[in-house]
Amino acid sequence: MIKHLRSAADLDAATATLILDTAAEMAALSGREVKKLPALRGRTVVNLFYEDSTRTRISFEAAAKRLSADVINFSAKGSSVSKGESLKDTALTLQAMGADAVVIRHPASGAPHRLAEWVDGSVVNAGDGTHEHPTQALLDAYTMRSRLGRLDGLKVAIVGDVLHSRVARSNVLLLTTLGAQVTVVGPPTLIPLDTAAALAEKTQVSYDLDAVLPDSDVVMMLRVQTERMQDSYFPSAREYSRRYGLDMRRMRRLPEHAIVMHPGPMNRGMEIAPEVADSPRSTIVEQVANGVSVRMAVLYLLLGGK
Amino acid sequence: MIKHLRSAADLDAATATLILDTAAEMAALSGREVKKLPALRGRTVVNLFYEDSTRTRISFEAAAKRLSADVINFSAKGSSVSKGESLKDTALTLQAMGADAVVIRHPASGAPHRLAEWVDGSVVNAGDGTHEHPTQALLDAYTMRSRLGRLDGLKVAIVGDVLHSRVARSNVLLLTTLGAQVTVVGPPTLIPLDTAAALAEKTQVSYDLDAVLPDSDVVMMLRVQTERMQDSYFPSAREYSRRYGLDMRRMRRLPEHAIVMHPGPMNRGMEIAPEVADSPRSTIVEQVANGVSVRMAVLYLLLGGK
Amino acid sequence: MIKHLRSAADLDAATATLILDTAAEMAALSGREVKKLPALRGRTVVNLFYEDSTRTRISFEAAAKRLSADVINFSAKGSSVSKGESLKDTALTLQAMGADAVVIRHPASGAPHRLAEWVDGSVVNAGDGTHEHPTQALLDAYTMRSRLGRLDGLKVAIVGDVLHSRVARSNVLLLTTLGAQVTVVGPPTLIPLDTAAALAEKTQVSYDLDAVLPDSDVVMMLRVQTERMQDSYFPSAREYSRRYGLDMRRMRRLPEHAIVMHPGPMNRGMEIAPEVADSPRSTIVEQVANGVSVRMAVLYLLLGGK
Repeated sequence: MIKHLRSAADLDAATATLILDTAAEMAALSGREVKKLPALRGRTVVNLFYEDSTRTRISFEAAAKRLSADVINFSAKGSSVSKGESLKDTALTLQAMGADAVVIRHPASGAPHRLAEWVDGSVVNAGDGTHEHPTQALLDAYTMRSRLGRLDGLKVAIVGDVLHSRVARSNVLLLTTLGAQVTVVGPPTLIPLDTAAALAEKTQVSYDLDAVLPDSDVVMMLRVQTERMQDSYFPSAREYSRRYGLDMRRMRRLPEHAIVMHPGPMNRGMEIAPEVADSPRSTIVEQVANGVSVRMAVLYLLLGGK
Repeated sequence: MIKHLRSAADLDAATATLILDTAAEMAALSGREVKKLPALRGRTVVNLFYEDSTRTRISFEAAAKRLSADVINFSAKGSSVSKGESLKDTALTLQAMGADAVVIRHPASGAPHRLAEWVDGSVVNAGDGTHEHPTQALLDAYTMRSRLGRLDGLKVAIVGDVLHSRVARSNVLLLTTLGAQVTVVGPPTLIPLDTAAALAEKTQVSYDLDAVLPDSDVVMMLRVQTERMQDSYFPSAREYSRRYGLDMRRMRRLPEHAIVMHPGPMNRGMEIAPEVADSPRSTIVEQVANGVSVRMAVLYLLLGGK
Repeated sequence: MIKHLRSAADLDAATATLILDTAAEMAALSGREVKKLPALRGRTVVNLFYEDSTRTRISFEAAAKRLSADVINFSAKGSSVSKGESLKDTALTLQAMGADAVVIRHPASGAPHRLAEWVDGSVVNAGDGTHEHPTQALLDAYTMRSRLGRLDGLKVAIVGDVLHSRVARSNVLLLTTLGAQVTVVGPPTLIPLDTAAALAEKTQVSYDLDAVLPDSDVVMMLRVQTERMQDSYFPSAREYSRRYGLDMRRMRRLPEHAIVMHPGPMNRGMEIAPEVADSPRSTIVEQVANGVSVRMAVLYLLLGGK
């Protein structure tokens, strides 16, 4: 088993599949009302969050507590960090305190890799800048597999500001490792030529959502980062929604069996219409539930729980 | 047993009495140094607080932990909520994460009722806008019963800005259900005629504290919301304190056995004089201790602990 | 055993030694992978922090959880305190909620002493204003003893803004109780004559770091409070670093066996050079690890764990 989960690239197909299978066992135990497992009793999991992300923090906290670990939440806002403490010094502190795993959310891409050099415990990337968010990709893969029965050969469209999305990057890496065929879809200004060329090694690129939908098993809508809409190359909200938003009319272009995903939190009415978000094809609530099972599996396997 | 505690109106006399009796058992166990009960082991209680209220949050947290539940604190300030996540999406997230109970504090009246439509777990209202705060009313009733031996026929004066007080509203509902006779007392500008008429169905209304005191078993002083003192219809601080503040002179008008209550935090010197707050008649510290027992009882009964 | 740890002056030599010995046992258990002790099961430890101090809060939280206590974090920023609740009312609240120990960090010197008058539980001072930080002194003493084998007769230089440092004050008290010889070193403007005279009862005073180093077993660098550098009597950053910063050249003046300490968080390049902080003589990371063991010992002994 790997020691850290810094990137979806840390996972080969066998390891990724082991995580998904373990997550399924975790979900089955929860379903049989086994609410608490003793696997990580006495272990300490630190949530080291340099950005607010209540959903992700709570999901990891719930996962660790169901495995009986102790959880310490460290919100780096307004902490010693603001006194100028470096990530290295913080890492040495957590190391000295005996953290068995550190779950890190950080605005700088690559922060989890640096952290892993300084601590003995396992590092789990809970989102670093525009870089990666591997547990999100795992829960997305889990959701696809559980709804559609397989990942190999699955046709997945990822739609939005692909270039700046850590969710998209981790999904592209993981899904192609697991044999899915990924098409990224977005406005040309957000997928410039060189990016498209780089992406083309692993995925197909399209600027036309309507053309992609009829041949997709999964459509994953990315959250629009509204702060990025100020940028000159970003379409207007109205234009974006018209061309790349998923409304009911567009959803009907999907095959009968296809599902609609979103990592949340949604901008209802922007990238996804409320009726689509609440339709039976939508897996948005399942994704959240699966997130806890997948994070239980990751912590369990990284920490060698028994 | 009821599933949710959204309002004191959710409670009929039998249910309210069951909660108070259960709270008494919880208090007795704590008194015998039984510090931790296994009743809710493996259950998850989420404290979902959209307003700061450290006292109430800690009280619920202590109650849940004494019952061996896992507690996850979710402070909605600076969370995904500020990214525009709706209460509904947050509810679906907590639901997906398997929350067995959600304790919610929210600035909007009625938020707990809406939340209860979206989650399978139990919802406990920890204060919603100017609407209700039912566990405060329960701990107040518990305190009266434990000091004075009964609730039926008890004469209770509730004093202050009754119109905007969720504590007052929940107390009026619960105390009248349990047979107490409530008189609300405050400045005429804060209890306008139509309000007085509406209140008059359940309670008596008075503008003269000195006249009410000699015939009261309990006087409950409400906290003055200093931010509301800017309003034109609010008396000046000096005027308010002179007419409706409880000082030593006024306290002597109470019968020998009568008690003085306050939900905290107090404005010492405004609605209550420091010597009154610290006098043996004052139940303010007991109310806090009783709060933990009552909240243990509520969580235990709502979650069907065993 | 004492009930509270408000000041290093609460500790006589026997009690301090008992704490250090107990901490060594705690560290040995952790080293043998005994991650969790049942000693404080069912006890509640409240972290009452009126100032941000993530390191210290986490260290106490980790210590309490390893002893199986329930931990409630109470950050007084943005809490009811901002509604004007006094420390006394907060204390009565915690008291009523059954806190067995309250760990308090407060900007006002003496706050832990006042708190101890109002609660039945044990009070542990986690830093009060410019006054004291006794568990820091204990972990420093523990680190010296574990590195150098003894405290009696040890020569310790404490360097920096001694006058305003709670770390320095607690260390002077504890180390002299345990037989060490302390020299405080700093700029004359920060150790005025009357202070020097008062300190001289217990310690030696020097304004010349280079002269003190060759005869020191331990040099403890204090953190420069950058906010205090605005004051007219404070040297410029450049001047301070040149005269009182510990760089490699200066470190070589120390005896071969001498160690370098810092309470953290460091201003690398100001009071300590990065190469010094990361050298084998530096005990900075050990100090953090020892902090958890020492705080386990303090909580265990104060609460009469078994």
